[in-house]
Amino acid sequence: MAEVVEITDPGDLRLADYRDLRDVQLRQHLEAEHGLFLAEGEKVVRRAVESGHDARSFLMAPRWLDGLADVLARTDAPCFVLPEALVEQVTGFHVHRGALASLRRRALPPVAEVLDGARSVLVLEDVVDHTNVGAIFRSGAAMGFDAVLLSPRCADPLYRRSIKVAMGAVFSVPWTRLPDWRTALPDLSAAGFTTVALTLADDAVDVEDAVRGLDRVALVLGSEGHGLSPAWQRAADRRATIPMARGAEHGVDSLNVAAASAVACYVTARR
Amino acid sequence: MAEVVEITDPGDLRLADYRDLRDVQLRQHLEAEHGLFLAEGEKVVRRAVESGHDARSFLMAPRWLDGLADVLARTDAPCFVLPEALVEQVTGFHVHRGALASLRRRALPPVAEVLDGARSVLVLEDVVDHTNVGAIFRSGAAMGFDAVLLSPRCADPLYRRSIKVAMGAVFSVPWTRLPDWRTALPDLSAAGFTTVALTLADDAVDVEDAVRGLDRVALVLGSEGHGLSPAWQRAADRRATIPMARGAEHGVDSLNVAAASAVACYVTARR
Repeated sequence: MAEVVEITDPGDLRLADYRDLRDVQLRQHLEAEHGLFLAEGEKVVRRAVESGHDARSFLMAPRWLDGLADVLARTDAPCFVLPEALVEQVTGFHVHRGALASLRRRALPPVAEVLDGARSVLVLEDVVDHTNVGAIFRSGAAMGFDAVLLSPRCADPLYRRSIKVAMGAVFSVPWTRLPDWRTALPDLSAAGFTTVALTLADDAVDVEDAVRGLDRVALVLGSEGHGLSPAWQRAADRRATIPMARGAEHGVDSLNVAAASAVACYVTARR
Repeated sequence: MAEVVEITDPGDLRLADYRDLRDVQLRQHLEAEHGLFLAEGEKVVRRAVESGHDARSFLMAPRWLDGLADVLARTDAPCFVLPEALVEQVTGFHVHRGALASLRRRALPPVAEVLDGARSVLVLEDVVDHTNVGAIFRSGAAMGFDAVLLSPRCADPLYRRSIKVAMGAVFSVPWTRLPDWRTALPDLSAAGFTTVALTLADDAVDVEDAVRGLDRVALVLGSEGHGLSPAWQRAADRRATIPMARGAEHGVDSLNVAAASAVACYVTARR
């Protein structure tokens, strides 16, 4: 049972996990150093705890206590309670749906564990925007993808913004970091997946044709600015593209990575 | 030929159009009152002018003058030139790709003009996020959609962020505001379009079945939070859904509106 601790001083040192939530760089350092991440909003806090993450603490205005009573009953972490206006003073912004939790990050699972039993997998290379990473998790989850693998430079799926945009799918879809960028795609092929790289390359085929009838598929998507690296484009078993219809007339030759992933997941789910 | 005006004082009153670009509310007032909008970045500035928008003025650091020389040659608006660091002081943020332009908004065209000759149309109800509006324009343009119609409460496609996310497609895809929210969908049906509402309603059919074989289609998408209003769901000729595969397992029962529009545009483009 969480101990409810009423706090009146927004400078209280026990609130250190919740400081300056709008400062992305500062948060990245703080969260990495202490091995924590933040969940925001009653629903997301609940999902984070229910998916097995240990809470370090909770922070909320009084009116959120009742709704989260069952979650708080199952933990020994303290629950700091402050008036709504002071919560905002601590975090530096208006907290959507009032409740926050600071949770312990877990060790990332090995790739083989994440791939175990998986049939449809997303592989992201250097997608650096938290919103895009979150949106891709959400689309993947909606389309029944079993796992997400991230290159070392991809944005953090457990950053507050990623979690929110993903609607919490980062807690339920198994994911991990690829330990070696160079061998990632050949390793997937060796594990029985057909790696399908989304690209605008001239020799790319229609993505519907690329995935048709395949059993285990790994859809490979590149970064926001420049798409997939040449090395990954070469290493993939197939190069595929989402056909554009007269996009050139409008000066648009591609979808953004979140839109492209939604379409590619949709097509792959119906293969 | 634009007159190049060197400016040394960031407080110069002639720079009023470019103040405080990060303050969304202030910008919305200022831009509405003066009938202007801002284009950011060499490519977007060029596209804004080439699509026929009159420039009020330009603002850039010296090194962008050469690249935009042909654009500046065709206008009589002044081009204010400041050292890079002062540009940032005026706008309140680091200007991506250095050049800005303030352009005159044009009167919005009547719906009938926008629909003239169109075969595939997007209709947005209360999509309030600039990023989503921009992303939907980009996906629509990439998939060959001919026009976009916006309910009165939708976010402004000519807001700086919308333009950027749309890759400038807001300049090339014809669009306008719907004058009457209540009669919008029946009016479209009367104009020969089959209105297809994207919804999670129980009686919705697979979107591929809903659009198959149709000639003129209007895809209707709702707001970020609650989707389409009941009134528009009822008024649409067909209710359609993007099938989710096991999304429920992950607590995800829908795509976000930008992802949903990408998939729906893709499916509709291949009808």
